[in-house]
Amino acid sequence: MSTSNTAYACWRLASRPQGAPSRANLRWETGALPSPAEGEARVRTLFASVDPTHRIWMSDAPQYMPPIAVGDVIRGEVLGVVEESRAAGTAPGDLVTGFWGWQTHALVGEKSLRHKLRPAAGVPLEAYLGVLGGTGLTAWFGIEDIAAPRAGETVVVSAAAGAVGSVAGQLAALRGARVIGIAGSPEKCRWIVEECGFHGAIDYRRENVGAALDGLCPKGIDVGFENVGGAMLDAVLARINVGARIALCGLIANYNDLEREEGPRQFRQVMMKRAKVQGFIVLDYARRFGEARAALEAHLVAGRLRHRSHMVDGLERAPDVLAGLFHGDNLGKAIVRL
Amino acid sequence: MSTSNTAYACWRLASRPQGAPSRANLRWETGALPSPAEGEARVRTLFASVDPTHRIWMSDAPQYMPPIAVGDVIRGEVLGVVEESRAAGTAPGDLVTGFWGWQTHALVGEKSLRHKLRPAAGVPLEAYLGVLGGTGLTAWFGIEDIAAPRAGETVVVSAAAGAVGSVAGQLAALRGARVIGIAGSPEKCRWIVEECGFHGAIDYRRENVGAALDGLCPKGIDVGFENVGGAMLDAVLARINVGARIALCGLIANYNDLEREEGPRQFRQVMMKRAKVQGFIVLDYARRFGEARAALEAHLVAGRLRHRSHMVDGLERAPDVLAGLFHGDNLGKAIVRL
Repeated sequence: MSTSNTAYACWRLASRPQGAPSRANLRWETGALPSPAEGEARVRTLFASVDPTHRIWMSDAPQYMPPIAVGDVIRGEVLGVVEESRAAGTAPGDLVTGFWGWQTHALVGEKSLRHKLRPAAGVPLEAYLGVLGGTGLTAWFGIEDIAAPRAGETVVVSAAAGAVGSVAGQLAALRGARVIGIAGSPEKCRWIVEECGFHGAIDYRRENVGAALDGLCPKGIDVGFENVGGAMLDAVLARINVGARIALCGLIANYNDLEREEGPRQFRQVMMKRAKVQGFIVLDYARRFGEARAALEAHLVAGRLRHRSHMVDGLERAPDVLAGLFHGDNLGKAIVRL
Repeated sequence: MSTSNTAYACWRLASRPQGAPSRANLRWETGALPSPAEGEARVRTLFASVDPTHRIWMSDAPQYMPPIAVGDVIRGEVLGVVEESRAAGTAPGDLVTGFWGWQTHALVGEKSLRHKLRPAAGVPLEAYLGVLGGTGLTAWFGIEDIAAPRAGETVVVSAAAGAVGSVAGQLAALRGARVIGIAGSPEKCRWIVEECGFHGAIDYRRENVGAALDGLCPKGIDVGFENVGGAMLDAVLARINVGARIALCGLIANYNDLEREEGPRQFRQVMMKRAKVQGFIVLDYARRFGEARAALEAHLVAGRLRHRSHMVDGLERAPDVLAGLFHGDNLGKAIVRL
């Protein structure tokens, strides 16, 4: 790729972060627009997803996918439009989603273009990277497949105003459970209760989480949907009922210190309460994405599911959006719009 | 109960242990032989079980049953013979098992006497407190219900020469799994490999457990049967495969310090490897005890299951046997013979 032209740009991993990820760990690279070979199309990125898991991929600690190699384009879910096609069945204007990373354009092979995105009426396009994308699907499988809360059970969701947590809590409530969310600001707490239908919220920056859980979960906790880990998970484990299920979705509290991690101090409760702690990664469910997305879309179109995007304009700002996830800057799904 | 007669004796909880349990926490009490009321029988204890969980019951930390109250007889599984009966359907000479604790005799109500013990030919009586009692049943449900190792999978069992671990490992091997045991002496390692059919053993007092696991589990670990916790569990978690199951049976490493517990430092692997960690307590499976005991007995009679008792004579010595469990004194099931 020549650099005589700046029509193309991308973020590459320059170095592995120590602690919090920052702009210094990334390199902005520009170049000429790439041209598709036979069987490929060029997709222009419209939206790029920014997720806590980016921090994991940037490290070389043992993880669920190969780390991003230093020098490679930052991996990630994107939504784009086909600009030029030499792939059968794909034409300019087609909307597609994929895992093509933080770049303005991607060359994509025929196989990955099979599923065209046909947005439902009234659903904003970026929702397909959020509530109908990886994070919404994550919430779906964590609630429907792993935790399976029953009507009347008490569910606690951490990072509850985040892209995954807000959907997880709503899905649990739709199953008839009593749902308590833990979030990091009065605005977030208000949003999950007043708009998303959570039955209670705890502002972990301003309240004692344990005491608040005691008050809001008088019958104990049957299901934890865990995105955070650390003290947050301990507060939940200390209050679980016999037979509790913990859907272990994320441990963001530890992502910036993957080397020197403390485990949950209340781990013994898993044994005492015959609980199940189950980790899951949405990519394992690829075969069931269609089923889950259809169910989520139906909820959305029927007005049963609220969602918000933390939308930032300009791929250049993706590193700052990522850093912000670790300070709780986002309410809803963090997305960069190009 | 009068104290004019010392035909009866029992151990009562005198104080809650701080750290390791010792004789000082127990009180030996003697008295007259109790007489059964209408609907009761007097059972003379022949064997009393001594288990790590005794240490949990002696504490007042949150746990899976009410703690033993200070002043109460030490709870525990026993095997006895009916001496005098005023209970319908029960006659002197009947063998029975129950949860009647560390005492020479117990008055037992009709309901608890329904199931008479009919030992199979060639099976020693004490086996009904071990491989066919609570510990064998624990191993059974942990392997058959929780972990369910498949043929060809790699299973790691901690405290592998203990009452539960030795049976769990053999049951896993009978399912066709490759079984590695972690134990605390050359004799224990020899026993589990040469007699119990484990495929490998690691002496944690003399070997680096992590390095040894690397050598013995070249394909990673699919199932952990965890009795110990702490560094032992971390060594396993660091090497689990995607979809691993950890049957969380015990955490003896922490029982003497229930207040100040560290969680598994490798906990993140549960998420990364989409693993399931599930606690279980054999008492939850009471309805299926008959089925499980029959299967274990069939294995035993057919010579497919080895077991050993760490037998000590005299109820007076029960506190020392208990203390010894935390030093790894026992090979096989710790039992006091009266």
